[in-house]
Amino acid sequence: MRYMIFGESHGPCIGVVLEGVPAGLALDLEAVQRELDRRRPGQGELSTARKEADRVQVLSGVFAGKTTGAPLAMMIENTDQHSGDYEALRYTPRPSHGDYAGFIKSKGCLDLRGGGHFSGRLTAPLVAAGAVAKQILNERGIWVGAHISSIYGISDRALEDTEELKPLAEKEFPVLDDTKGEAMRAAVLEAKEEGDSVGGAVECAVTGMPAGLGAPDFGCNVEGVFAQYLFAVPAVKGVDFGAGVALSLMRGSEANDPFVVEDGKVVTKTNHAGGVNGGITNGMPITFEVTIRPTPSIALPQESVDLRTGEEVEIEIHGRHDPCIVLRAVPVIEGVAALAACQVLGI
Amino acid sequence: MRYMIFGESHGPCIGVVLEGVPAGLALDLEAVQRELDRRRPGQGELSTARKEADRVQVLSGVFAGKTTGAPLAMMIENTDQHSGDYEALRYTPRPSHGDYAGFIKSKGCLDLRGGGHFSGRLTAPLVAAGAVAKQILNERGIWVGAHISSIYGISDRALEDTEELKPLAEKEFPVLDDTKGEAMRAAVLEAKEEGDSVGGAVECAVTGMPAGLGAPDFGCNVEGVFAQYLFAVPAVKGVDFGAGVALSLMRGSEANDPFVVEDGKVVTKTNHAGGVNGGITNGMPITFEVTIRPTPSIALPQESVDLRTGEEVEIEIHGRHDPCIVLRAVPVIEGVAALAACQVLGI
Amino acid sequence: MRYMIFGESHGPCIGVVLEGVPAGLALDLEAVQRELDRRRPGQGELSTARKEADRVQVLSGVFAGKTTGAPLAMMIENTDQHSGDYEALRYTPRPSHGDYAGFIKSKGCLDLRGGGHFSGRLTAPLVAAGAVAKQILNERGIWVGAHISSIYGISDRALEDTEELKPLAEKEFPVLDDTKGEAMRAAVLEAKEEGDSVGGAVECAVTGMPAGLGAPDFGCNVEGVFAQYLFAVPAVKGVDFGAGVALSLMRGSEANDPFVVEDGKVVTKTNHAGGVNGGITNGMPITFEVTIRPTPSIALPQESVDLRTGEEVEIEIHGRHDPCIVLRAVPVIEGVAALAACQVLGI
Amino acid sequence: MRYMIFGESHGPCIGVVLEGVPAGLALDLEAVQRELDRRRPGQGELSTARKEADRVQVLSGVFAGKTTGAPLAMMIENTDQHSGDYEALRYTPRPSHGDYAGFIKSKGCLDLRGGGHFSGRLTAPLVAAGAVAKQILNERGIWVGAHISSIYGISDRALEDTEELKPLAEKEFPVLDDTKGEAMRAAVLEAKEEGDSVGGAVECAVTGMPAGLGAPDFGCNVEGVFAQYLFAVPAVKGVDFGAGVALSLMRGSEANDPFVVEDGKVVTKTNHAGGVNGGITNGMPITFEVTIRPTPSIALPQESVDLRTGEEVEIEIHGRHDPCIVLRAVPVIEGVAALAACQVLGI
Repeated sequence: MRYMIFGESHGPCIGVVLEGVPAGLALDLEAVQRELDRRRPGQGELSTARKEADRVQVLSGVFAGKTTGAPLAMMIENTDQHSGDYEALRYTPRPSHGDYAGFIKSKGCLDLRGGGHFSGRLTAPLVAAGAVAKQILNERGIWVGAHISSIYGISDRALEDTEELKPLAEKEFPVLDDTKGEAMRAAVLEAKEEGDSVGGAVECAVTGMPAGLGAPDFGCNVEGVFAQYLFAVPAVKGVDFGAGVALSLMRGSEANDPFVVEDGKVVTKTNHAGGVNGGITNGMPITFEVTIRPTPSIALPQESVDLRTGEEVEIEIHGRHDPCIVLRAVPVIEGVAALAACQVLGI
Repeated sequence: MRYMIFGESHGPCIGVVLEGVPAGLALDLEAVQRELDRRRPGQGELSTARKEADRVQVLSGVFAGKTTGAPLAMMIENTDQHSGDYEALRYTPRPSHGDYAGFIKSKGCLDLRGGGHFSGRLTAPLVAAGAVAKQILNERGIWVGAHISSIYGISDRALEDTEELKPLAEKEFPVLDDTKGEAMRAAVLEAKEEGDSVGGAVECAVTGMPAGLGAPDFGCNVEGVFAQYLFAVPAVKGVDFGAGVALSLMRGSEANDPFVVEDGKVVTKTNHAGGVNGGITNGMPITFEVTIRPTPSIALPQESVDLRTGEEVEIEIHGRHDPCIVLRAVPVIEGVAALAACQVLGI
Repeated sequence: MRYMIFGESHGPCIGVVLEGVPAGLALDLEAVQRELDRRRPGQGELSTARKEADRVQVLSGVFAGKTTGAPLAMMIENTDQHSGDYEALRYTPRPSHGDYAGFIKSKGCLDLRGGGHFSGRLTAPLVAAGAVAKQILNERGIWVGAHISSIYGISDRALEDTEELKPLAEKEFPVLDDTKGEAMRAAVLEAKEEGDSVGGAVECAVTGMPAGLGAPDFGCNVEGVFAQYLFAVPAVKGVDFGAGVALSLMRGSEANDPFVVEDGKVVTKTNHAGGVNGGITNGMPITFEVTIRPTPSIALPQESVDLRTGEEVEIEIHGRHDPCIVLRAVPVIEGVAALAACQVLGI
Repeated sequence: MRYMIFGESHGPCIGVVLEGVPAGLALDLEAVQRELDRRRPGQGELSTARKEADRVQVLSGVFAGKTTGAPLAMMIENTDQHSGDYEALRYTPRPSHGDYAGFIKSKGCLDLRGGGHFSGRLTAPLVAAGAVAKQILNERGIWVGAHISSIYGISDRALEDTEELKPLAEKEFPVLDDTKGEAMRAAVLEAKEEGDSVGGAVECAVTGMPAGLGAPDFGCNVEGVFAQYLFAVPAVKGVDFGAGVALSLMRGSEANDPFVVEDGKVVTKTNHAGGVNGGITNGMPITFEVTIRPTPSIALPQESVDLRTGEEVEIEIHGRHDPCIVLRAVPVIEGVAALAACQVLGI
């Protein structure tokens, strides 16, 4: 299964083509839509004011309700574009956006309206593709769950059992500890009021993967496969498996996961390795945390350079932006994790 | 440029084939050897007692001192193998090693001697391939440097300028602050004496990369390309770009890198993004930190399971192991970063 | 540059996503449409009676008339579908169609209407993608041309100079010798009247490719790259470079292409090698001939098997079909050759 | 499974790394050697006088007689090199060799001794890799066979049943009709005496492939996968499936393969499609013919250009060459077909 996404924030539509989908899957389009709704903008004070219905349409690859094995194309129309806001920024790139790098790459020919192809809006087709992948995995007893593990330094409580993630897909604010969730919301709103934004992290688990998949080598190791999918999500700047960066603080005797037998099955007592040893799945949940940078679009004045004159200038970004994208990133991370899991499974 | 490594810890040799090497490079084989020597075991009390000369031989792809553009194959002979130590472990996998995952994958047919193909020894051909990549990059004004950023919680001082990394390639213990280096060494030795091991982190920078390379999409984004190479290094469990996990604690106004003009060139005042915006290089050094887990091989008794009987057993690992692989990982990380940079450059 | 096509003959639309398009190309959409018009059905007695306007719409990747470097998505709506004709064939596969192979692959879940994703109609997005590739090549002084080299054993006269192909793009029936063209038409019409179809061949040349591209090895050799694109065109069953199968009849002294100097440039007197030696371009036009099988859809009764009962049955195919697809294949072959040439050029 | 070959005709060795080999295969190294012996030079008056033992050594990937799933590296030493013959040709490229194209690509830095990496000798590691693939296929009831279908216009009799190919692996001159074989030998010897060479063709079949593998799309269609492997064999200039180029002469009613039931199984009465419909296997043998060009190295004087002066010169090639490589190509074609079949099977 391979995908290509297309579209721009302010073009007619955005979409995805998914090649290699197994035939015969009774595609639950409502479930795909539910995943999109989790990511949809304009749902509350924590996200951008842009309103998009984000209704997914299937263009190909499904017949009589079942996947045919032919490329599955899905499209989402763009409806609520305010294009006037952006053209001014062509030559005064927004700090930490793709504007400058994209300007150089495209020799000035990029579509800046709403971030163009760099827009976080392009994560919608990723969610749609991921929702298909989730259905494929579910049929094999594999599921994917995630929670907001931190926002602006406020951490959710530690995940004790991946089963705890299952009910979170229904929650508007997917944390394990709602008190922490309230504090996170407050931090986001405070930043918003100050014209600023905040970063955070999402912890995700893929449960039910059989042991013995992958290889230590380049292109095959499970961590590398997952990382390739995860870093294709805008704003992801770090990917850490199992105990993650905490492993750098540990001794081997702490970090090693002892083998024990549970219900006649070999498992590990802890899962500091995040379900992967030597690049190969060991049968435990694949767990990882991704770092999500603060939204680069902030209302505060910022330093930039006019690319025509080479002069330093101060810019202010108008338009509608999320003060924190961690919340909306949760179904995206789950979706691309599902796509990665399919690749590891050879689907 | 693509590579394949081959070999096992206790087989006749280990090696690498590098396809797509540009023709006409005057290959400095001594420089390749110097990189291997940085990684070589048996050099001090901090690393395994195994003695290997690790002399690299070129089998193909070089003629009259220059690369021909044909696949460049390099081989390193194994000489100091003690194979008697390992067979006992076939059915009692070592915690957090590739043993169990590999056993399942290979239906029991894996070569366990010295870790077989999972051995850290397989990083030697990676270093050799990376040394070739470094020479290709150097011709284009690009260089790669790294330092031990932490061991067991003891951090090197912060990197202020990537130029500081240049002299470190000559240092036996590549840290910016030698006092911190001494404390790290002490921590390693203490763990070693207790039959234990420690983890750490390596920070790396690729300097001189032009702006405008990469794309936001899957398979093309710069972070994803680097991550795929980095996770193919055994023991790497996390990859974080720029300010890394600290971005989750930041506001946008702190995290954003303001554009300024320096020597007539557009640069960013800070480099929290690690040289990449929207998956595309922005001309600043590509910087990242990798988390290196503690060596799973420790002398202390550990819990395992006998895969034949399904009974829980206690095991003790004999053999020669590094109490900390962070030190020897430095040239490996640099090497694979160089390979990744070549891919980003379309070499 | 990579592409994915999607769609089915009787779905809402067909389309293509083209990733890695260089930014800054002033896309001539009229030229893309002209290529589609060359392939369009319903234009005369030689092709299917299906009427399709085949108007291409750009969904993404172009801004202010120029490519942005983001994925370029193009869509063509389906309008003239007669879906009633096909469902009967689900369990009685048409000989030499994808029906049976597709049935097994999809466990019966394929979309058979009009051939579904197997339809020759899916070559329209290939033509659109190829038309973009042609524009990219033209900017670099490279062009692609083709002619019908034979239909049902009636051969066009031999191509003496690739320049002769240039005016053929304007011809309704692209042959070098119109008398031969008339005979070919007659053969097609005769087959059509008898409820049958005929096969043929297309010869194609890519002119202006620089010498020194490619490599002898798997995945890199120029013939292999072209073949991979060409065999992705339905009905192509053979790909032969340069003198093609005639090389099997030759001696080395005949087959070898002597080097001579022309206008101060090293060229070969003949081009039996089709512009490729050792898997690498030699600067001569890349030439090849593809064999196009007769349309499998014929009106004559044929033998099949009822997949439900396992009984042999006689079937008759209704619907609208081309008695010969060689004519409409010409712009398709040119288009995929252009895509292949881009890959060889590293675009 | 992916491979990389390395080595030059006159370097220390040639070899191959095969990644993704399934673990647990009891590798029959004698069988690998037998395949190499079929391709080995110096065995008779029909091939080059170069003497090579071509003993294969396994460097990695096999433990206790079984594949471990780690990269399988195999090496063959070069022993009988006469390097003096070649350096003179650096600036006067041999017609239809890789010399000129390789010179341009490598900016003059190629290893010309014995053809360097372009040498037909590099097909030995392909044979070794293919022999491993054959063993993997055999375990699944799939086998590969081939015969010389023509040399210099003398055709072997038509293949009626792929079973006829099975005994040919034991024959020194693998044809179905030995009378035709004698005539072919005579044609080769006559060319040899005249300082010339001849071309020919090899027909190959892969029998036992299940129906339903592949897809019509780029990168997945079975013909495209096979072609990519086949064109990576030096001297292959054409690949034609099933009835091949004869399909261009046929009507649909002749070309279509009627479905019938045989032993309760759906098969086709004829196999003009070569076992592939719509890019997907249909359960019939995959059959194809490859065109092998005449050896470009001939003793007759030939026209070339001195790349230093730009003057036209006459050259004579010395050294030891095969007057016809079709004979030695048979195990090579079988081997790469086996590798292609593994890819189609997802191995």
